Amino acid sequence: MPKIYLDYAAATPIDPKVLKTMMPYLKKEFGNASSIHAFGQRALSAIEDARNIVANFLRCQPEEVYFTGSATEADNLAIQGIVKAAKSRIAKPHIITSAIEHHAVLEPCQYLKKQGCEVTVLPVSKDGLVSLADLKKAVQENTVLVSVIYANNEIGAIQPLAEIGKFLKQSKTKIYFHTDAVQAVNYLDCNVDSLGVDLLTISAHKIYGPKGVGALYVRKGTAIEPMVYGGGHERGLRPGTENVAGIVGLGAAIKEVASPKNKIHNIRIRQLRDKLIKKIPKIISDIAINGSLEKRLPNNINFTFPGAEGEALLVALDQKGFAVSTGSACSSHSLEASHVLTALGLPEETAHSSLRITLGKYTNEKEIDIFVLALAKVVERLREISGYKTKTNGK
Amino acid sequence: MPKIYLDYAAATPIDPKVLKTMMPYLKKEFGNASSIHAFGQRALSAIEDARNIVANFLRCQPEEVYFTGSATEADNLAIQGIVKAAKSRIAKPHIITSAIEHHAVLEPCQYLKKQGCEVTVLPVSKDGLVSLADLKKAVQENTVLVSVIYANNEIGAIQPLAEIGKFLKQSKTKIYFHTDAVQAVNYLDCNVDSLGVDLLTISAHKIYGPKGVGALYVRKGTAIEPMVYGGGHERGLRPGTENVAGIVGLGAAIKEVASPKNKIHNIRIRQLRDKLIKKIPKIISDIAINGSLEKRLPNNINFTFPGAEGEALLVALDQKGFAVSTGSACSSHSLEASHVLTALGLPEETAHSSLRITLGKYTNEKEIDIFVLALAKVVERLREISGYKTKTNGK
Repeated sequence: MPKIYLDYAAATPIDPKVLKTMMPYLKKEFGNASSIHAFGQRALSAIEDARNIVANFLRCQPEEVYFTGSATEADNLAIQGIVKAAKSRIAKPHIITSAIEHHAVLEPCQYLKKQGCEVTVLPVSKDGLVSLADLKKAVQENTVLVSVIYANNEIGAIQPLAEIGKFLKQSKTKIYFHTDAVQAVNYLDCNVDSLGVDLLTISAHKIYGPKGVGALYVRKGTAIEPMVYGGGHERGLRPGTENVAGIVGLGAAIKEVASPKNKIHNIRIRQLRDKLIKKIPKIISDIAINGSLEKRLPNNINFTFPGAEGEALLVALDQKGFAVSTGSACSSHSLEASHVLTALGLPEETAHSSLRITLGKYTNEKEIDIFVLALAKVVERLREISGYKTKTNGK
Repeated sequence: MPKIYLDYAAATPIDPKVLKTMMPYLKKEFGNASSIHAFGQRALSAIEDARNIVANFLRCQPEEVYFTGSATEADNLAIQGIVKAAKSRIAKPHIITSAIEHHAVLEPCQYLKKQGCEVTVLPVSKDGLVSLADLKKAVQENTVLVSVIYANNEIGAIQPLAEIGKFLKQSKTKIYFHTDAVQAVNYLDCNVDSLGVDLLTISAHKIYGPKGVGALYVRKGTAIEPMVYGGGHERGLRPGTENVAGIVGLGAAIKEVASPKNKIHNIRIRQLRDKLIKKIPKIISDIAINGSLEKRLPNNINFTFPGAEGEALLVALDQKGFAVSTGSACSSHSLEASHVLTALGLPEETAHSSLRITLGKYTNEKEIDIFVLALAKVVERLREISGYKTKTNGK
């Protein structure tokens, strides 16, 4: 049985180079980075090296980078932290976000709404794109934060961050701009000034680094408060003994992302993904692609196969050795239809018949060829079971 | 130059056995534990195995164990989470804690005080022990939480948790009992029922596991709310993609702690520590030991060397290849005297002349012998520089 992994948006394997960079910090270099002695100082120095790499990648200052335990934590810190700080000057802060955010953004917004904040959730086009016009209309006097995902995790749709950033910069009152860039980091430019963002979330395990580490970029001068209190680590914004090996891993992963080799990987990934886009409709009838094809991450494709239930597809493919997903891994155990797909206007049933396929740098052409054939068989079988009649003549 | 590490309370090296258990999850087993496919299911299964090990150690149910990104996060989750839930029924919740808590407990309490909670900080005896009588007097109608450290990180003082737990159980209104057991786990019984605690914090990197992972025990039925919102991981109490390798490492570390071999290590550690207690006063005059000698972790000793400033001691020893500490690593960059030592009644200057020495399972007798001689020389030189006159005739 093949073991073909096509769920890189859920998790990536650690790049062996990254793991090699981490290993000393899992072995001899075990010092606590807050300790004054040499063991501690070497750990601290490794963390600061990683911070420099991340800062260089984001084109920001190292002291604007804060390491966290996950991207979910970074998203929450951005959103809850900005609102906490805003509450001293605004009684009822207003947040604008989009309908296709990750749960790590939507859920803290919903929590804050219950706490008395105002929240506007922007709709998206049928291609999955937020419109600047909608955003402009949503801005209020009490708006303190806009949080829009850079590239969506389910459909790969790339949002017009630079446009939004440019508009928000002209605002009379300060409106902070946060983006969850977790899925974008490996593929898109993350220059925080070009994007015009004040806060940006990254994650290591989506870019061939370890799980359990993320980072939040916070532009200097941003009014933000911590969620966690303690020993003052990360300049007081995220206390807790630093995960040295994890942070070193995040730094090493970013270094690989920024390397010329990664550009070559990404071109190849796009070609393989485009092969899927070309081949699948040829051998499977009645399919739809969800999300914009132009403004889309090169490693993502999301199909709807009417008559074939997504979870059943996933399980059948898994039994044949293929790892794909119906949507975000973080909500894979939910029975609800994907909030992203329903935001595109898909009926619930259609949303339930969808599959996310995400490629990565270890994906090869042979895997794609084998996968397409297996997928076609599985869809056909499931459609037989469900009694689905293809609308076209099919293959 | 020797490299002698005597700062095990700040961080421990990862046990090679633990690292070996973690390695597959840093290599081939890279699945996201929320993914439904086999990659994800194997990751999930590894997490649940670790949860079972921790639960078995704490004598609780697996579903009462929640993994976090650090012990600081677990402490904050316990304290902030209990207060958040309490606020729906009590306008001004009251927390009782002690003067010798870790910053990860004291700081969230101070934050909540600013937010309108009442906080009582219990004093300690000159031996560093909280008294049940003081606690009894402190309880109010609106008391919702007591948080007392199991064994202090600077002086190793073991607090009377079982007594406190027993008393709190008799309370008319529910008062939750939390303990930061980070330093205790390797040495003391952590049966949550014997201790009578409702919440208990552990950390991996203090018990020969990796940094970046902790856990919070939460007794079933406890009214607690999350700090972070997102994809519903850890039954909604701590969302964020699970740090699979880290969690596996925490499980493996607990397995070693619970092994019969660890008891033998701990006996040897106590003997070596007792050698320090016996030898140091013989060759260095005018010293004092901080904290109870009876109710003390077997790996901890904390001396005051009047006339020798702690930071200078630490740096001089570091230059000779010895890693020790003046107090908590988490506040090592602070210029303030240790809040733990001043809580014992030590004047600031005396507190500043103190040194924490913490041993571990890789400490050997030769290291102790070399260290004692080096320490004596360094203290002597610093006392010469400061013009300190010994009160006794010295050696």
